[in-house]
Amino acid sequence: MNLRIPGPTPCPDYVLEAMGREMINHRGPEFQEINQRVTDNLKQVFQTDGDLFILTGSGTGGMEAAIVNALSPGDVVLSVSIGVFGDRFAQIAEAYGASVVRLTSTWGTAADPEAVWNALKENPAIKTVLVTHNETSTGVTNDMAAISKVVRDADKLLIVDAVSSLSSLPFFADEWGCDIVISGSPKGWMVPPGLAFVSVSPRAWDAFKEARMPRFYWDFGKARTYYERLQTPWTPAVSVYYALDMSLQQMLAEGMESIYERHARIAQKARDGAKGLGLSLFADERFASNTVTAINVPDGVEARAILQQMQSDHQVILAGGQGTLDGKILRIGHLGYVTEEDIALVIDALGSVLPKVGFQPTGLLARGG
Amino acid sequence: MNLRIPGPTPCPDYVLEAMGREMINHRGPEFQEINQRVTDNLKQVFQTDGDLFILTGSGTGGMEAAIVNALSPGDVVLSVSIGVFGDRFAQIAEAYGASVVRLTSTWGTAADPEAVWNALKENPAIKTVLVTHNETSTGVTNDMAAISKVVRDADKLLIVDAVSSLSSLPFFADEWGCDIVISGSPKGWMVPPGLAFVSVSPRAWDAFKEARMPRFYWDFGKARTYYERLQTPWTPAVSVYYALDMSLQQMLAEGMESIYERHARIAQKARDGAKGLGLSLFADERFASNTVTAINVPDGVEARAILQQMQSDHQVILAGGQGTLDGKILRIGHLGYVTEEDIALVIDALGSVLPKVGFQPTGLLARGG
Repeated sequence: MNLRIPGPTPCPDYVLEAMGREMINHRGPEFQEINQRVTDNLKQVFQTDGDLFILTGSGTGGMEAAIVNALSPGDVVLSVSIGVFGDRFAQIAEAYGASVVRLTSTWGTAADPEAVWNALKENPAIKTVLVTHNETSTGVTNDMAAISKVVRDADKLLIVDAVSSLSSLPFFADEWGCDIVISGSPKGWMVPPGLAFVSVSPRAWDAFKEARMPRFYWDFGKARTYYERLQTPWTPAVSVYYALDMSLQQMLAEGMESIYERHARIAQKARDGAKGLGLSLFADERFASNTVTAINVPDGVEARAILQQMQSDHQVILAGGQGTLDGKILRIGHLGYVTEEDIALVIDALGSVLPKVGFQPTGLLARGG
Repeated sequence: MNLRIPGPTPCPDYVLEAMGREMINHRGPEFQEINQRVTDNLKQVFQTDGDLFILTGSGTGGMEAAIVNALSPGDVVLSVSIGVFGDRFAQIAEAYGASVVRLTSTWGTAADPEAVWNALKENPAIKTVLVTHNETSTGVTNDMAAISKVVRDADKLLIVDAVSSLSSLPFFADEWGCDIVISGSPKGWMVPPGLAFVSVSPRAWDAFKEARMPRFYWDFGKARTYYERLQTPWTPAVSVYYALDMSLQQMLAEGMESIYERHARIAQKARDGAKGLGLSLFADERFASNTVTAINVPDGVEARAILQQMQSDHQVILAGGQGTLDGKILRIGHLGYVTEEDIALVIDALGSVLPKVGFQPTGLLARGG
């Protein structure tokens, strides 16, 4: 099976083997050692010297944790949204009583840093900015360096959803001045779902002191207290720690620069391959993500038919579109444990399936072309 | 290693093997099939025909989910607490703005159903009652049949923390009229941590409609909507589903009556064994839990010394006391994947360690006795 969705992602054998290790006492020395090593290694990938906590939950849980630890009901928040996950971030803030100002971009394009600057100038009451680094629903990556600079210049708190980018795309939490950054295990980290990761800057801790949204399970204060003894407040998903410990050691051995370069190369192959079949890309190529590629479903073709034949005939699992993009796009995940060969097989399979569902591939890469 | 803490608990080999299975699409048919089977089998163990949701998080996350889906800020809640986990339940409710009336019992004893009745009569404003079925911190099991009857007679909503009892002790969610019941994977279910389970009665859905505590990640409404297509709102801890699927099939094949009987028999062996060494039990034996046994640390003996020698010399991992019981009790977990032989080894090891830390075992079971 070639699982090519933007998470959960395939896991290497050594990671899956680690998942099968026997339980240990989560309050004992063996867990403490793993927790410390994994946390330190995560900080290297986040590029932060600040605090970092591992929470048992999904990436959305990590996003909720960021909101409730940094904000109070009534706080004015700028939501910079370019898709489903940007909208979700705004919805979480609103569910907890924030007053959300929305800055949305046409889906398929990135956020404009100048528009962020203007929104902050127009609404001086804004205290905090929510940004999605990599928007999985549209296959777009925001220019976090530029957006971060604007938010820093305006002296606002910056919370970044880096769930589907961190570990696969270059990220510099401290250098960019990101205050809370969230990622999640089933993305480029090459491990199964169950854990979210959040980094917390000194400025975020200042915000935490004032934050009055209710919280218990996700409370960063409790996480900090327990981490002082290298524990977690609640029983953690121990098996996923085992797996993450293995994958992080492998990632740091491969080298993050090399991993980023591999993701860029493979993503280019995915985009070129799709275009070579005569398909068009959903995202503006200037902002196209190197972890997920969104392809427009050709007119007159059923997205579901493509997905089903890709699975039944070629054992390739792709993702469809979310929300209003359902039926309109296909998405290829190419993050984490992925090779150029995996993507070549996907493109080859697409070239074989498309004629059967009513679309004739064109160009050099088409079958027999 | 003989891991004898009240969770995480040891897992059978077939469960650990399932943890190592490759990832699948959590929005695809294979996951739907597993999700449906696991949910149906959990309902059999909960003994409910109501709704049941699997949430990615710890048991404490499941407790928070119960609170935020059933209550509004300002709601008056009766917290029936007999230990650390009962207190935690009250703290979660307070963190979200509930007005908590506390009914506490001396630690080591169970809640008195008549006292619950009187508290409800004295405080007619109480809408909801929070009860711990099995209090892990003290090794006490409440009489849920009697407490449930009182709460039903008073027509209040009943939320039960059954994290460490369900799957090991008889439980009848519908027959007893429990409205929301919470359990968690790393207890008697014999699977690693990462999932919480919550059952939701029709009365709880009525409360949900009125409940105004903020929620997003734990929202039962979203869980229900996604379960209609056999999915979860957020990426679930897929590997733990695999494991739970295996363990539930094994449990139902063994038969719940047989499992309950095994837990009762093994717990009796633990209590008899401790007393046979001249140790005293922390819990009133009338209410002693069949999943965890709390033993008083003898005067003049360091709890830590016992725990360390049990591990270093006998590869037995026991738990110490929590909160104010730290240093005062030892706890033996005997839930889930446990045999009489496992507990015989623990008692034998205790008999060997105690003289080395300054306590002379007495009675028939003492070494050489």
